[in-house]
Amino acid sequence: MNNIVYITAGFGIIGLLFTWWRSVWVANQDAGNERMKRIAGHIAEGAMAFLKAEYKFLFWFILAVAILLAISADSELSHPMVGLSFVIGACCSILAGFIGMRVATKANVRTANAAQKGLNQALKIAFAGGSVMGMGVVGLGVLGLSVVFLIYANIFPVDTKDALTRVITIMTGFSLGASSIALFARVGGGIYTKAADVGADLVGKVEAGIPEDHPLNPATIADNVGDNVGDVAGMGADLFESYVGAIISTMVLGAAFIGAAGFTDNFNGLSAVCLPLAICGAGILMSIIGTLFVRTKEGGNPQMALNMGSIGASVLTIIATYIICKWMLPEQWVFSDPLYGNEEVTYTSTNVFLATIIGLIVGVFIGLVTEYYTAGGKKPVTGLARQSVTGVATNIIAGISLGMMSTAIPMLLIAVGIYASFECAGLYGVAMAGVGMLSTLGIQLAVDAYGPIADNSGGIAEMSRLPKEVRGRTDKLDSVGNTTAAIGKGFAIGSAALTALALFAAYMQQTQLSSIDISKANVISALFIGAMIPFVFCSLAMGAVGEAAMDMIQEVRRQFNNIPELSAALAVMKRNPGKKEDEFSEADRQIFNAADGKAEYGKCVAISTAAAIKKMVLPGLMAVLIPAIVGFAMGTEALGGMLVGVTASGVLLAIFQANAGGAWDNAKKMFEEGVEINGVKYFKGSDPHKAAVVGDTVGDPFKDTSGPSLNILIKLMAVVSLVLAPLFA
Amino acid sequence: MNNIVYITAGFGIIGLLFTWWRSVWVANQDAGNERMKRIAGHIAEGAMAFLKAEYKFLFWFILAVAILLAISADSELSHPMVGLSFVIGACCSILAGFIGMRVATKANVRTANAAQKGLNQALKIAFAGGSVMGMGVVGLGVLGLSVVFLIYANIFPVDTKDALTRVITIMTGFSLGASSIALFARVGGGIYTKAADVGADLVGKVEAGIPEDHPLNPATIADNVGDNVGDVAGMGADLFESYVGAIISTMVLGAAFIGAAGFTDNFNGLSAVCLPLAICGAGILMSIIGTLFVRTKEGGNPQMALNMGSIGASVLTIIATYIICKWMLPEQWVFSDPLYGNEEVTYTSTNVFLATIIGLIVGVFIGLVTEYYTAGGKKPVTGLARQSVTGVATNIIAGISLGMMSTAIPMLLIAVGIYASFECAGLYGVAMAGVGMLSTLGIQLAVDAYGPIADNSGGIAEMSRLPKEVRGRTDKLDSVGNTTAAIGKGFAIGSAALTALALFAAYMQQTQLSSIDISKANVISALFIGAMIPFVFCSLAMGAVGEAAMDMIQEVRRQFNNIPELSAALAVMKRNPGKKEDEFSEADRQIFNAADGKAEYGKCVAISTAAAIKKMVLPGLMAVLIPAIVGFAMGTEALGGMLVGVTASGVLLAIFQANAGGAWDNAKKMFEEGVEINGVKYFKGSDPHKAAVVGDTVGDPFKDTSGPSLNILIKLMAVVSLVLAPLFA
Repeated sequence: MNNIVYITAGFGIIGLLFTWWRSVWVANQDAGNERMKRIAGHIAEGAMAFLKAEYKFLFWFILAVAILLAISADSELSHPMVGLSFVIGACCSILAGFIGMRVATKANVRTANAAQKGLNQALKIAFAGGSVMGMGVVGLGVLGLSVVFLIYANIFPVDTKDALTRVITIMTGFSLGASSIALFARVGGGIYTKAADVGADLVGKVEAGIPEDHPLNPATIADNVGDNVGDVAGMGADLFESYVGAIISTMVLGAAFIGAAGFTDNFNGLSAVCLPLAICGAGILMSIIGTLFVRTKEGGNPQMALNMGSIGASVLTIIATYIICKWMLPEQWVFSDPLYGNEEVTYTSTNVFLATIIGLIVGVFIGLVTEYYTAGGKKPVTGLARQSVTGVATNIIAGISLGMMSTAIPMLLIAVGIYASFECAGLYGVAMAGVGMLSTLGIQLAVDAYGPIADNSGGIAEMSRLPKEVRGRTDKLDSVGNTTAAIGKGFAIGSAALTALALFAAYMQQTQLSSIDISKANVISALFIGAMIPFVFCSLAMGAVGEAAMDMIQEVRRQFNNIPELSAALAVMKRNPGKKEDEFSEADRQIFNAADGKAEYGKCVAISTAAAIKKMVLPGLMAVLIPAIVGFAMGTEALGGMLVGVTASGVLLAIFQANAGGAWDNAKKMFEEGVEINGVKYFKGSDPHKAAVVGDTVGDPFKDTSGPSLNILIKLMAVVSLVLAPLFA
Repeated sequence: MNNIVYITAGFGIIGLLFTWWRSVWVANQDAGNERMKRIAGHIAEGAMAFLKAEYKFLFWFILAVAILLAISADSELSHPMVGLSFVIGACCSILAGFIGMRVATKANVRTANAAQKGLNQALKIAFAGGSVMGMGVVGLGVLGLSVVFLIYANIFPVDTKDALTRVITIMTGFSLGASSIALFARVGGGIYTKAADVGADLVGKVEAGIPEDHPLNPATIADNVGDNVGDVAGMGADLFESYVGAIISTMVLGAAFIGAAGFTDNFNGLSAVCLPLAICGAGILMSIIGTLFVRTKEGGNPQMALNMGSIGASVLTIIATYIICKWMLPEQWVFSDPLYGNEEVTYTSTNVFLATIIGLIVGVFIGLVTEYYTAGGKKPVTGLARQSVTGVATNIIAGISLGMMSTAIPMLLIAVGIYASFECAGLYGVAMAGVGMLSTLGIQLAVDAYGPIADNSGGIAEMSRLPKEVRGRTDKLDSVGNTTAAIGKGFAIGSAALTALALFAAYMQQTQLSSIDISKANVISALFIGAMIPFVFCSLAMGAVGEAAMDMIQEVRRQFNNIPELSAALAVMKRNPGKKEDEFSEADRQIFNAADGKAEYGKCVAISTAAAIKKMVLPGLMAVLIPAIVGFAMGTEALGGMLVGVTASGVLLAIFQANAGGAWDNAKKMFEEGVEINGVKYFKGSDPHKAAVVGDTVGDPFKDTSGPSLNILIKLMAVVSLVLAPLFA
């Protein structure tokens, strides 16, 4: 049966080879003129500076946790090697983010350059960049887990159920590494991007009156770097941890089947452990095939092309999943579940397949609901635009109200998904539903990561003063694939909930808890504390954005006042309101040009970096330490209660924030395109538009800082509990 | 032992006699000049119009639910009489709100009039008004429950444990009546007050440019009515249901002790059932004594006076509680708890007393935390004011962040409170902790209700053009007692959480569930759904405020355009910007005076009323129907899971919204008094102040509509489950 793992390792390698191939192809495209290259260079440099600072902190964090794990895990149920798993998982996560950002900072300028020729060529480069990220993440995930499994299976004599369980316990460290790095990356990246964004806007646009993405603004580069470290590197690490978490939790739960009557493989149940790896491995192949569908002729519909790729890959993966379930699992097997008083339950391969598909269906529906609540032109966002007419206050109230309402159907879908997949195949079924959502992550993430690349290419086009139609094309690129991206978000949220539950179930299995009874005082107390944590976490993240933005504002003000060339150029702009550079007088143009390159972008980058690194520590450590404290102080059952509290309120706040933020953003965009309300047509610059801009700014940390971090938080706390389970037991 | 209940009924009657006495005293005070009387008359009329419309809807609701209950409760465990309990509970709740509002609409104008003479006399009337409400609520609560208990104890032969349990089951209908009316009153009142407030401000102040509380504004009266129906009648019904819920849930849990070894009363445990009634009865007496401490000489400190009253009553109640526990309960008794595998647990009267005190302490600390996060001048609100300098967006983000952070300590306190009181005396201890918080409700509520009366008196002083120093005195009155009111809020939140849990425990006892295991798929699914409900509920409430405000805006605009005298008077005001009425030319003054009384206040009142009644139905029915649906469809254990989800996320959202709203309000007030930030002093009308005003408007529905309703929602859903429990079993 180990053969399967060799094969999945092969799939991982194929994913990475594809990553390498596409990444070389992107690098070989033309990066445009000198100005474009210089700007792109600044962005790439800034991004690297952030990563370097982040890695410096993470090095010590990884070292400390690895040592602690190695020391504390020295027991019969675990092994110091869990520290090694942690280091490998953390490194894979870092690598996933690094690969994605490396290619994104190359693809952005090349997309901008290609957009000068046409839409199709630009789409090709942006999507290639995205697929490097996508396949990099899934390739590293499947390869990393397979290799770790093979190593331990060779080191430890895996001959009994207990021995195998121990190997998988040691493997959980991998997931812990991935999750903790992801949380830091998401929180740090989220703080970085929003601090730079808000800072650049407030001093640049509002105080100094210069346009967005203007090279005179010292925070402009930091703003564009932010898009890369937040939306690309952050997202890469984020989905890497989702993917790994879903697989690992299923493996732990699968290990319970070992020895169950019905299995015929050489280990009587190892196939259930390897199943998620095999399905995800097949998913890599199908995602690669899917990317080949993403082609369009000039004048064709790029949206169609992206949809074809996703749908094609999904259909292929469903077929593959059916074949793999039927091939790897016995027709049926009988298992005495210790969770249910050792009652005998019969599982079938068909039902496991069904559970997996249920995950997929739930994810698609959550995505559609997400799109309904956040897409411009649909009823909710149109209503939000209407509420902007009476001012900022009504816009904010309506946005919060919209976000809260948008939690209803996704939560019901998640509840139904849990219930239905449990009916199919117990907790293993719930875990497989999570795997089902993420099995085509390769192509999903390709479409997701394509977004920020297209966005960034627009910024570069603007800063490089490329013709207006180029920006038009990059904007079109950016708007394409929104539905696919919304469905991707649906998968992220749904799988976070299901995976958190699967990890929770795995935790129960490891601690040999047969029930978690909320009528016990310690359990309900812990549940209350757990439910509160996402609120505090969000507060810290949002507070950090506010404080970091203040630092940024002060630095930009300083540069404007202390760098004579900048002050002079700003004065020129004030003397020539509304004029373009080539309409300035000759003298003014000279002064203006003398300022070119004088803005100290690096200092703003450094400030955003320092603030992000400093402020990510507390929320990150909180997530790692609280489960340990609660577990030791209140016991394993209470810790279980806490995890449920964290999951319920975390998922709710995540959906609320993501959708409110998305809706505010698109309501603002509706005004930019012009929208008719009660017979009056409102445009950019109108009062309702200004109210909508404020809503969008409020939504920024919601959807880009605290919201997406919550998905990681809930899983990280579950993984910490799972890894520490042998200590509590 | 029935004697005890006769005594508690006596305490209830004493409370009501006190209510009657103070209410007559208030009515006998001078209501001021004609203009004041006319304005106060409009407000009182509007308030009655709302109550009438509300009662019309409630009549059918009460009838329908009573019939349904009577039909469905025809079982051995319950009895159709539960419908009668429901009707009595509902009527007592309505009466509590009615008494409070009746006296408040009398005390407001009399306080304004007395403020012409001095602070002390005004304080006396406002506090007398508040204490009518306070003692009315507790008097009706204790008397109502005692009488219902005595009736059923006489109808049904209470000779076995089962018979007594059945009687208490029938009594739970009383709590259901109180809670469902409270929810409608809170939601309806909250929508009413905020719709009128926002509508009056947006058209009156912003569009027409007339000052706040100006008699030309047709929505002015509706705005002042709103303060009464929201803050007074809504709060009265709210705390009535808290009080009754806490007592009833403790009685249900106490009934489990009956027959336990150690009791010596004539029923072997009936004393544990009657204990909460006895303590609350004593609390009434101590509260009345406390009100006598509230005296101050002219020039004295009214804050001190209020504090003396609260602290005096609390100390006396603690002493009385100790004596009652020692007198009514045996030194110790042994109980085999079916919730814990019939393990034998020893309870002592000292520990029950300690559990009660724990409730009191937790409540005080939650109140202090509430004050810390919401009081002007303290670090959080000062920070919020600072964040207003960079605009609305940062003010909103900071307010949300502040509100989220403010959940941390209260949730920890609640968790510790649950744990500690459970350690003292099991679930009965948790319930008694809830009773402890509310035992001095009489005086707490007197201080709470005093606030809106003082506030309203200020509005009347303004509208009646009383001298400026009068408004100064009413403002001072209003600002006094904030700490006491904050502690009252702490009690409301803390007791909601503890009472919800106690009701939950009572529900488990009634359905004979021995555990609620969140590792079961249906339980966790239901918990997720439950956690989502408060989000949807808040969304509905906030959305209703927005829509109702739009209706109000249209009506005010219509009157301004269609009533010639109003249009003319508005034109006069526009012609004389910034001028006072007596500075107008003679001709203008005539036109202006011709408009006096022409605004159709009644229409605005009717609109607010209609909107509030219409929009309160869906959230109200949701709370009643969902537990029934989940209970029947998913089973009793799943319903338990749902209740825990509702409680956890409901308490969090309630704290978050109350504190964010309070902080925004006080940050705005800091600017009105003038605040120095980074060396610059900002006043009313400055940009940061305007940003803070927007924050305050966002916070309005948070703290006055959806937030306070959540406390009721979580208990109502638990009570519905408890009442329907015999059907599920």
